[in-house]
Amino acid sequence: MSILAHDCSQSWRPGYSLPRSDYVDSDAFGKDVRLLGEGLWLLIDHESRIPNAGDFFTVEIGSENIILIRDKDGNIHALYNVCRHRGSRICLKEEGSARGLVCPYHGWTYDLDGRLRGAALMPSDFDKSENGLIPCHLRIEDGLLFVNTSRGTPPSFEEFILPFRPFLAIHGLKETKVAARRLYPTQANWKLLVENFFECYHCKSAHPAYCKVHDPRKLLAFGAGPGSGDDALTAAYMPIFQKWEAERRADGTFIEMFADDADSLHFRSAGRMPIGDGALTESLDGQPVAPLIGNARAADAYDGDQSGMVFNPVSTLLVQSDHAVIFKFVPTSPLTSTSEAIWLVHKDAEEGRDFDPERLIALWDVTLAEDKTITENNQKGVLSAVYSPGRFSTQEARISDFGIWYRKRREALV
Amino acid sequence: MSILAHDCSQSWRPGYSLPRSDYVDSDAFGKDVRLLGEGLWLLIDHESRIPNAGDFFTVEIGSENIILIRDKDGNIHALYNVCRHRGSRICLKEEGSARGLVCPYHGWTYDLDGRLRGAALMPSDFDKSENGLIPCHLRIEDGLLFVNTSRGTPPSFEEFILPFRPFLAIHGLKETKVAARRLYPTQANWKLLVENFFECYHCKSAHPAYCKVHDPRKLLAFGAGPGSGDDALTAAYMPIFQKWEAERRADGTFIEMFADDADSLHFRSAGRMPIGDGALTESLDGQPVAPLIGNARAADAYDGDQSGMVFNPVSTLLVQSDHAVIFKFVPTSPLTSTSEAIWLVHKDAEEGRDFDPERLIALWDVTLAEDKTITENNQKGVLSAVYSPGRFSTQEARISDFGIWYRKRREALV
Amino acid sequence: MSILAHDCSQSWRPGYSLPRSDYVDSDAFGKDVRLLGEGLWLLIDHESRIPNAGDFFTVEIGSENIILIRDKDGNIHALYNVCRHRGSRICLKEEGSARGLVCPYHGWTYDLDGRLRGAALMPSDFDKSENGLIPCHLRIEDGLLFVNTSRGTPPSFEEFILPFRPFLAIHGLKETKVAARRLYPTQANWKLLVENFFECYHCKSAHPAYCKVHDPRKLLAFGAGPGSGDDALTAAYMPIFQKWEAERRADGTFIEMFADDADSLHFRSAGRMPIGDGALTESLDGQPVAPLIGNARAADAYDGDQSGMVFNPVSTLLVQSDHAVIFKFVPTSPLTSTSEAIWLVHKDAEEGRDFDPERLIALWDVTLAEDKTITENNQKGVLSAVYSPGRFSTQEARISDFGIWYRKRREALV
Repeated sequence: MSILAHDCSQSWRPGYSLPRSDYVDSDAFGKDVRLLGEGLWLLIDHESRIPNAGDFFTVEIGSENIILIRDKDGNIHALYNVCRHRGSRICLKEEGSARGLVCPYHGWTYDLDGRLRGAALMPSDFDKSENGLIPCHLRIEDGLLFVNTSRGTPPSFEEFILPFRPFLAIHGLKETKVAARRLYPTQANWKLLVENFFECYHCKSAHPAYCKVHDPRKLLAFGAGPGSGDDALTAAYMPIFQKWEAERRADGTFIEMFADDADSLHFRSAGRMPIGDGALTESLDGQPVAPLIGNARAADAYDGDQSGMVFNPVSTLLVQSDHAVIFKFVPTSPLTSTSEAIWLVHKDAEEGRDFDPERLIALWDVTLAEDKTITENNQKGVLSAVYSPGRFSTQEARISDFGIWYRKRREALV
Repeated sequence: MSILAHDCSQSWRPGYSLPRSDYVDSDAFGKDVRLLGEGLWLLIDHESRIPNAGDFFTVEIGSENIILIRDKDGNIHALYNVCRHRGSRICLKEEGSARGLVCPYHGWTYDLDGRLRGAALMPSDFDKSENGLIPCHLRIEDGLLFVNTSRGTPPSFEEFILPFRPFLAIHGLKETKVAARRLYPTQANWKLLVENFFECYHCKSAHPAYCKVHDPRKLLAFGAGPGSGDDALTAAYMPIFQKWEAERRADGTFIEMFADDADSLHFRSAGRMPIGDGALTESLDGQPVAPLIGNARAADAYDGDQSGMVFNPVSTLLVQSDHAVIFKFVPTSPLTSTSEAIWLVHKDAEEGRDFDPERLIALWDVTLAEDKTITENNQKGVLSAVYSPGRFSTQEARISDFGIWYRKRREALV
Repeated sequence: MSILAHDCSQSWRPGYSLPRSDYVDSDAFGKDVRLLGEGLWLLIDHESRIPNAGDFFTVEIGSENIILIRDKDGNIHALYNVCRHRGSRICLKEEGSARGLVCPYHGWTYDLDGRLRGAALMPSDFDKSENGLIPCHLRIEDGLLFVNTSRGTPPSFEEFILPFRPFLAIHGLKETKVAARRLYPTQANWKLLVENFFECYHCKSAHPAYCKVHDPRKLLAFGAGPGSGDDALTAAYMPIFQKWEAERRADGTFIEMFADDADSLHFRSAGRMPIGDGALTESLDGQPVAPLIGNARAADAYDGDQSGMVFNPVSTLLVQSDHAVIFKFVPTSPLTSTSEAIWLVHKDAEEGRDFDPERLIALWDVTLAEDKTITENNQKGVLSAVYSPGRFSTQEARISDFGIWYRKRREALV
């Protein structure tokens, strides 16, 4: 509802936040769901969630419900949860194990790979081979499940994943398992969640626990990842960073940073960085929270290093020497989203003995709860008729690029 | 929300379920409410609910609230629950008894037949005779209340009811009373409820209790009433049916079956059939649940026979030798409906002594609760962008016709 | 949802209630929010709510959230609760006290008058003086806070307030304070709340407590304030009123009545009148509920007189010798509104010792709760397709004018 007849304050300029309509309108939202689902490879979970044949879980992507299921040959399939007969949901549980997929309505049965096995009393010219469950594009990389909802050809997965492979290679995520997951349903447009995640300008005001474990000079320089701060902000941190870099290079540890620009397809970025003075991992007190994973360094150690991988604006992964966290931002309506965090630990780690789930999740659990509050207040203000796109600080360069990227991707939709 | 730019999978063909928009869109729903309310005679209740002068109840039809009230001469009136002054609801209770209808806002009083009796301080040229409550078309047949919300001439009631009279004649419903009622609010479009009711293809998967009391061969042949199965399905049951038919004819019992085709106005059907081996009535264990009603057979008996009367797609009546059940499907929004069941027993039957309401309702209560779950899952899947109209089985011929009928009736709206 | 194809019953005529669309549609609502906020001076509260520097409260106006805050010089400012950076809400509490306004997101700080004081790490060409909080027009009269949300020039406050000044002059509202407030969230369009407040035709049916304390002949003649009844209704009360008038004139007490017509900008009215035989103030039993305020009469006394001031259709003030009540009607969506009542007593009155809040609010609390029920039933009926604008009684002349005023103001929107 606008109290202004002609709303001339809502035009968009690079360097400013987006106009209100982008955060509010149903039309924009409809395009957003396509832009994300069809244009990107969405990171949705870790394959350790379904280790055995018949294991499945369901996941919401935009307005769709998708079944992820492992077949007898160990292959995982992503299938739309829609019976080909009259459209009923087939899997009603969020996760479970089954010998086949049986529609609860009329009993049509599908194989674990989605092929229609049985459908009673159908006309003689009915072709079962044409009535399997509709598949969704799926790729698996080091145990990470990526999906794309395009009905045609998805973007190349090989090109997409290539620059992340050196990072993934050192963390052994194939040898991890899901230790915990939390949902943060948020009354805000998904782009406000992304923008909040793409800058650390708010960390000082809003995230005391997060700031306690991270080097404050690093947060200024690289708080939102590679390229997020300007020269002045970076200057104070550079000596510390370069010293760490030299040490890592000396013992042969992999070091790199990159960030796609606003013209790119996926708007990816990744980098490796130290957490902060004394912190061995990203936890409330900086102390280890689980057994070591991967082999980032020649000498296995709780090394205080962190790899950040932004696969796209709604799929991020942070990895430390002892655990990893997947971050997902899921649009559910123009004014609501759900952020989800999934914590991974070594596959042999035993809850209670080797790790305490509450300690494992504590830092990000409190930080994501703070982000929920922040973005909900942001959405409320953006709904006002007096909101107009605001100027970004020098610490918000990455959001500025995100706005440009988003606008380009939306225009590119056919 | 569609994730597809151009949704070419949503065209409709006979023999397939309807396109998504028919189950989802507000426009379709607006037409549906008119199509049902103005085009049909809706069965809404039994007159035993309001036995005495001044007794009333209110009922929701589409977006309307209608008062059913008995006047001093014993006549029942259907009146829109809208004061002619400034539009306030008049009856605020779902049922009760009153000496007149008094608007709670400004005290305008109406007679039990809706005529405006008193309105204080109105201008001298105000004509009370032109300001009675707006009536709704009402017809009563054997105690069954039928309404039509057309503002003009409704379809002929005589032509509509004629083929049901021989069925009604043998069941004495005038001499029954309401013994129980249950509501099943359902997150699904009303057509999914109707389609579910028009086939028994799902009974085997979804309704174990229902299948236990009915002959499985009958469910295959006639599960959705007259004409629902093809020759092959009917063949196995025919010998049994014909034996029963011969017995009934021999002792002079009324037997018949008919089904309107897809070109008809009301899409009616009716038939008489045995329930199944050994079942004396349609109850959980097949045993009687109330005293006998009507006189279907020369020798009064719990005979295991059942009359089914589909007055239109949203108004059905099932009658056995000891009780009857009215089924109503009430659209409340594009994605929500309420189904209601009303159980009738002999007017002299006393609760506790002659019947146990829990036993009376048990079979359909569990079955309708299952139908609620089924249709809600169906709606969820139909909302998916990958849903496309699905092929019907040979046991779903009646739904196929329903789709054709529905499309024709919607096109016929002016 | 209309069940009628062509709804010819919905044209509007003076002397009749408004057509359904005015009470229901989103388009009408969007215009209404502008018509009220931009066209009127809305009475929102009393300045005693924020006595000290830094005290603030927030208020909803249409879809906007406004901060009312007192600065160090004692001046009060009305500021949109929207940070100029990325739009976050700043004040998250409904009321409180602060040394400055600090955005919880990125820590931007504003002075108590809305000027931007601090914004870290902004580009060098960023101009703080252009990024203060957006102000809302505010005027204060005898402690009463009036706001206007126009982005341009608001209507003249001086012309607006002038005719109320003689009334306000005798009541000393500057020397009062807020003693209680209550909200009545109502499922009805705001115009139904206004119409309900603009007639006393419903008092007899709906407000037994209110009728007990007021002279019934007065309610007939002037129940909705000056000009609400015709000659016949006024005749019976005139001798009583004129006797009271003569007494008040004799001792020099201020007496007056006026009512804007339907062509006016603000649709104001005001008048002074006795409550009823024996009632000393407007309370459940007519007995005083607080210490005296103002000096309406030369001899301070619980005099049974009442001043009514309708500043506009959604802002009303009633004042007796011992307390005042502010009435606000706040539109929140096409089908929902909130009415709020704020009770004022002498600033030195002490709760518990000098007044009992429950006794103070009792009469209007019960009456407004009744009005909530009434208007919700009215809305339900107005949603019916058979609703058509109804004829007004001779006691509803003020609503009739309100309808004309409303239609003119809506057409006048650019």
